[in-house]
Amino acid sequence: MKILLIGGTGLLGSGVKKELEGRHEIICAARNNADVEVDISKPDSIKKMFEQVGKVDAVISATGSTHFGPLKEMTPEMNEITIENKLKGQINLLLLGMDYVNDNGSFTLTTGILMDEPIYCGASAAMANGGVTAFAKTAAAEAPRGIRINTVSAGVFQESSEELRGLFPGFDPVPLKKVALSFRKSVEGIQTGQNYKIY
Amino acid sequence: MKILLIGGTGLLGSGVKKELEGRHEIICAARNNADVEVDISKPDSIKKMFEQVGKVDAVISATGSTHFGPLKEMTPEMNEITIENKLKGQINLLLLGMDYVNDNGSFTLTTGILMDEPIYCGASAAMANGGVTAFAKTAAAEAPRGIRINTVSAGVFQESSEELRGLFPGFDPVPLKKVALSFRKSVEGIQTGQNYKIY
Repeated sequence: MKILLIGGTGLLGSGVKKELEGRHEIICAARNNADVEVDISKPDSIKKMFEQVGKVDAVISATGSTHFGPLKEMTPEMNEITIENKLKGQINLLLLGMDYVNDNGSFTLTTGILMDEPIYCGASAAMANGGVTAFAKTAAAEAPRGIRINTVSAGVFQESSEELRGLFPGFDPVPLKKVALSFRKSVEGIQTGQNYKIY
Repeated sequence: MKILLIGGTGLLGSGVKKELEGRHEIICAARNNADVEVDISKPDSIKKMFEQVGKVDAVISATGSTHFGPLKEMTPEMNEITIENKLKGQINLLLLGMDYVNDNGSFTLTTGILMDEPIYCGASAAMANGGVTAFAKTAAAEAPRGIRINTVSAGVFQESSEELRGLFPGFDPVPLKKVALSFRKSVEGIQTGQNYKIY
């Protein structure tokens, strides 16, 4: 398959790439240092990316910045960072990229454990996770031409920095390899409308 | 209690008002024909509303416009309507209104069944429902001064128009009175971080 992997240069994206690159042609997209440049917070940048890449069999999003900070200091402007990136950015990949995905192809988007299990400073990220999950579930049921849509919701990675893992007290970090397998399941499998939880 | 009810002039808001007005002082806010005017899609309008109303014991949001339309025709701009209103509008009520809620007061926001059970044309609304639910769950865990935060997710109402009920084939419409009771439970009860489902 020809797979467009957005966020292919990050920790999650690198793990997904490693899992898939032996069997598929992977085109990595990211803000920089990638095959194609894209800023998912800008619809025009998403359109340009799809025009450059052309038709693909699968779109994987392993990206999405979020605002991370205490509720009592959060302003609408801070929350906007998450809305523009992880929430709208990923949903716009789907809205703007549907015509570039071949029949029976797939979209796999990234959500995360914070929608189910709150941590301090995580409200904005939780919002994006919950929003993308719910959008994708309906979109999967409406998608044309056999296109499948799933989301992957992972906990903090064993491979994440000690500092990041420290923000998830009592959470059992998950191996990146296991998370990457869920992306493979979504891309190579037959399911749609699923939210794969790796907690 | 002194309760600020946003969206008090709509079908849901009217039902909530009827349930609560015998025991509480209700201030209705809406775009027009209300005690206070507010457009929740505009942060400045939300700030002005809270400045006018002052301290309250409970904030209830029974409002939030959404875009309703087929996935394959949906543009980022159409989805933006939902983001500005039901998603961001309600979250901004919380971010901008926290300081106006008395100790041990509460916020109750509105989500909806579409995040759990897709219907045709409902992806954008589902996104708002999922996003608000997840945000509120973390916000509840971080809220200061004993402030509680819950959401109410209802199915289509028995009292909704026949046309609207027709968009939910096979769904069992719920009595507005039962939905309004959940808002009362949230306001007068002791629970926080809950998403009351009336399906």
